[in-house]
Amino acid sequence: MTLPAADVVAQLTALIGGNAVIGETDKMGNFLNEPRKRFHQTAAAVALPASVEQVQAIVRWASEHGIGVIPQGGNTGLVGAQVPLRGDEVIVSLGKLDRIRSVDVAAGTMTAEAGVILENAHKAAEAENTIFPLWLASQGSARVGGLLSSNAGGVNVLAYGNARELTMGVEAVLADGRLYQGLNSLKKDNTGYDLKDLLVGAEGTLGIITAATLKIFPKPEDYETALVNITGPEAALTLFQMVRERIGSRLNAFEIIPAAGLAMQLRHGMLDRDPTAGPSHWYGLIEVSRMKGGAAGTLMAAIEAAFADGLIDNAVLAESLSDRTRMWSFREQMSEVQSKEGASIKHDVSVPIAAVPQLIAEGSAAAERLFPGIRPVPFGHMGDGNIHFNFSQPIGADGKTFMAQADEAMHEAIYEIVLRLGGSISAEHGIGQLKRELLAQVKDPVALDMMRAIKTALDPKGILNPGKMLG
Amino acid sequence: MTLPAADVVAQLTALIGGNAVIGETDKMGNFLNEPRKRFHQTAAAVALPASVEQVQAIVRWASEHGIGVIPQGGNTGLVGAQVPLRGDEVIVSLGKLDRIRSVDVAAGTMTAEAGVILENAHKAAEAENTIFPLWLASQGSARVGGLLSSNAGGVNVLAYGNARELTMGVEAVLADGRLYQGLNSLKKDNTGYDLKDLLVGAEGTLGIITAATLKIFPKPEDYETALVNITGPEAALTLFQMVRERIGSRLNAFEIIPAAGLAMQLRHGMLDRDPTAGPSHWYGLIEVSRMKGGAAGTLMAAIEAAFADGLIDNAVLAESLSDRTRMWSFREQMSEVQSKEGASIKHDVSVPIAAVPQLIAEGSAAAERLFPGIRPVPFGHMGDGNIHFNFSQPIGADGKTFMAQADEAMHEAIYEIVLRLGGSISAEHGIGQLKRELLAQVKDPVALDMMRAIKTALDPKGILNPGKMLG
Repeated sequence: MTLPAADVVAQLTALIGGNAVIGETDKMGNFLNEPRKRFHQTAAAVALPASVEQVQAIVRWASEHGIGVIPQGGNTGLVGAQVPLRGDEVIVSLGKLDRIRSVDVAAGTMTAEAGVILENAHKAAEAENTIFPLWLASQGSARVGGLLSSNAGGVNVLAYGNARELTMGVEAVLADGRLYQGLNSLKKDNTGYDLKDLLVGAEGTLGIITAATLKIFPKPEDYETALVNITGPEAALTLFQMVRERIGSRLNAFEIIPAAGLAMQLRHGMLDRDPTAGPSHWYGLIEVSRMKGGAAGTLMAAIEAAFADGLIDNAVLAESLSDRTRMWSFREQMSEVQSKEGASIKHDVSVPIAAVPQLIAEGSAAAERLFPGIRPVPFGHMGDGNIHFNFSQPIGADGKTFMAQADEAMHEAIYEIVLRLGGSISAEHGIGQLKRELLAQVKDPVALDMMRAIKTALDPKGILNPGKMLG
Repeated sequence: MTLPAADVVAQLTALIGGNAVIGETDKMGNFLNEPRKRFHQTAAAVALPASVEQVQAIVRWASEHGIGVIPQGGNTGLVGAQVPLRGDEVIVSLGKLDRIRSVDVAAGTMTAEAGVILENAHKAAEAENTIFPLWLASQGSARVGGLLSSNAGGVNVLAYGNARELTMGVEAVLADGRLYQGLNSLKKDNTGYDLKDLLVGAEGTLGIITAATLKIFPKPEDYETALVNITGPEAALTLFQMVRERIGSRLNAFEIIPAAGLAMQLRHGMLDRDPTAGPSHWYGLIEVSRMKGGAAGTLMAAIEAAFADGLIDNAVLAESLSDRTRMWSFREQMSEVQSKEGASIKHDVSVPIAAVPQLIAEGSAAAERLFPGIRPVPFGHMGDGNIHFNFSQPIGADGKTFMAQADEAMHEAIYEIVLRLGGSISAEHGIGQLKRELLAQVKDPVALDMMRAIKTALDPKGILNPGKMLG
């Protein structure tokens, strides 16, 4: 960086006003403290632009002075992409760009600015009797720009796709301050390279997304939700194939949770009552949507067929909204409950669906071999091959000692299995700071070279979220 | 080019053998003559590599000598992307790479080489009781590599997406001959930029796709297909919204065809009998899939509701496979029948769905104003906002004179309307040679700059399909 921090603040103030610039480190807390508390770097300043033009002005200025800019949304990212790495960067918070520019039911689109909180996007869609089907635990604070930059997934990827698939077009400020005006409502447009999909998931390293055209869908008339008792991941895989064959694209979610997850939540009083049909080694959460005028009972019929085939030995169907909510809470509280059980080691990984049972079996066995008493808690999006393969510390162990001993070794063990099975070391959460060294080790070198060439082509001065993803 | 054509042939022969190289122009017919007969350039040679390694060897050699290479699949492209522009290029036909490497029902994937004919991909999927749902008129000759490079659409985009959305990963030879090994079966993989979606739809200008992991889906148990009589595009739009709300993602197709299309096909004896319920200004072809164990009658119920709402005034449901085939023939013969009616001017355009009625009304009026007696025949993928806005010559007019007078003027008129409505000048067919000058005029200059920067970064010598898309 060529400018002292005081000049950075003064010049940013001249650009967008003093109320929109934070220069004192002790006032930056909300922008520096990320959910996992793993990254502890300060920033030269936090800028809070109130318009796309102000974002452009900031980036133009940053480009002139070679200053790094870090786009930030709700600061909910789990890999440190949205917080500083060096300490001399400017955080550009998009929170003030929180306008929903339009909702067009006939076109099936909503245009939302980067700072729109996901829950507000949900509400805007629902006000028109439609849905924006990106649902995840942090939806009360995560914002559109960050969700797209990290290509967020969530619990409805099975039916509707991830953030990339839910985005029709983006508007983004490029490294020289120019605006890429890629908003559109076209389902088909073969006029050149797919720049939208390049910007989505780029973690702010190729441009700062300022708005997006998002897909909205007709609101299903109802949902059918069930918790089924299954013997294990092998049976879950067979059940998934069977359900998918019967229900196709109306299958919203197919999640698995091990018995340990239920026990933990009941122990910590996180469920008002047991939502399952009774004790089981594993549970499957299955949800199907029913469109207007469609016949009810699709899921029940599939479950009856699964009983007949011996795939499940008990099940409970949600009979009310509160039943459904409890079932989903059981699934969504899985991360939170682990923090109540002491230290935990986490892996957000994916493998081809058919390899999920092998992943869970081998990963659990490796953990038990390395650290007897460790508690494997693999759960998540079976239908996407995406398992949050987490491990809680042994009961009674010291958390810090456990992490010091086990963290690295467990990562190595799990990633080795994942890569051997043709999987990904980051299914949903991205690379950011956390996994950039890992990425350099495991990614196809040709792919890395392509990525670096694209990065250099679109951000020759390297000012956009410097050091993230590609190092 | 630095080498005389004879040396090109000799050196290619040394690389891949004499039987795999065509040097005589008069033997290149199948590779030069594209469907529209608009491009008449020769090639320095045609190379027919039999392996990925041979493709790499050819590109490495081309890179050393600065020779342009044009990847070609089934030579069915409609914009001249797959045939030479200058005459000194080498056509690299991928036809011999026609192996289906694997079909994995549990993972929901098929890995097919670039030269696999689409119909053979269909058969391989169906042999495992699954479908690969990319269906289009040229499926008997179009090949996987070309379909992906042009991001082909077709009649089932509504339910399953276009070629890009149907592709999970690609393998491609890059400009320096290295192999990008991006095949994978992962539904979620957030480890870097979306290189797959960049290579898909790039018309061979960023790499030569040699294989792809394609999505396959459970085969529906049955289809429900109907031809409905509708007053016009406005009613079709309302009907589409209503059907979508009731049927959601099981709605496979929603196509519209004007009365003129039926009259033409009956006149030329292209239908063994009228597949419609009777005379109407417009027809809608609607198809819904029914999954295993699902209730029948979904489409009938929607049609009854549409009757009650006054949206349609007659309808016929397919009662047999031959009914269904006839309905689809009626739709798929629309292009062919126009060639039997003399000269025609074609536009493959898209607009936001809600703007389709305005596009058709304004475009038809403009045509009639400019060229009285011209016959507008707009038809196609209403549900994608993608209309093949074609115009047949006035009855009795001279075809050549008509084209000389009307071709340019009609393009201008239609593209003006399309762009004003926020649409695309190429919905499905791409840019190639045909629309590269048009693209330079109408595309956002910032987007064009990004595309050029990416092209230069990944193909610094400009040897991959030179001059296509970006000029």
